[in-house]
Amino acid sequence: MDDCLFCKIIRQEIPSLKVFEDEHAYAFLDINPFQRGHTLVVPKFHAKEIFHLPPEELAGMMPALQRTACLLKRKLGCDGMVIQQNNAPIAGQTVFHVHFHLVPCYEGVPLTWQPLDPKPTMEELQALAEHLRA
Amino acid sequence: MDDCLFCKIIRQEIPSLKVFEDEHAYAFLDINPFQRGHTLVVPKFHAKEIFHLPPEELAGMMPALQRTACLLKRKLGCDGMVIQQNNAPIAGQTVFHVHFHLVPCYEGVPLTWQPLDPKPTMEELQALAEHLRA
Repeated sequence: MDDCLFCKIIRQEIPSLKVFEDEHAYAFLDINPFQRGHTLVVPKFHAKEIFHLPPEELAGMMPALQRTACLLKRKLGCDGMVIQQNNAPIAGQTVFHVHFHLVPCYEGVPLTWQPLDPKPTMEELQALAEHLRA
Repeated sequence: MDDCLFCKIIRQEIPSLKVFEDEHAYAFLDINPFQRGHTLVVPKFHAKEIFHLPPEELAGMMPALQRTACLLKRKLGCDGMVIQQNNAPIAGQTVFHVHFHLVPCYEGVPLTWQPLDPKPTMEELQALAEHLRA
């Protein structure tokens, strides 16, 4: 899909803060994170909603999703994690390529479902992505 | 797991409002739904959080999850869907067996993340489960 933001990120035509990648999926930091380490995992196959993704692509992206979840938990020491996948604008979807939000939860830091304020700087996000990839 | 509520549901030791089942997963209506058709999809393999599920079990439950999502969309005519999986109490997990919430969204019916009030009767839920299975 020529005009899809996430397809462009996967093809590296647009820079992103990569956390993990394999044959089926690409994981990168959300630049407007709800919590420290908020990461998006997207299938490399373009589909708008989960209903439209070939079943083998949905199953195929799960190892990358799980590995990214474990990476965030281990490297950030979070106390829990919400994994959310939204379909259609009414459900909160704003980019129309299937994506799973991995949102770490921390004791004492309420999850408001709004971007952190102040938001982290690009330098802080780059350092975090490097820490996660290391 | 002898004492796990969802393992008992899967083994049919406790009644549930089954929507779909295959080799890897079991889907049933939430009896305190946030929206009409709110369904839980659980792997048959017992694991507390997504971090602990064998990768092949996570991938293996995706066909049932996707089929259930498509079933809800087609049969209920919802306008969107939120799929959410919570890990640890801080993330909202209350039953400690991995589960995905499939929450249909409808135009004009805000998703409050609280049980519908008034809650549907057991007869209404049974009729809904039958409609979805038909």
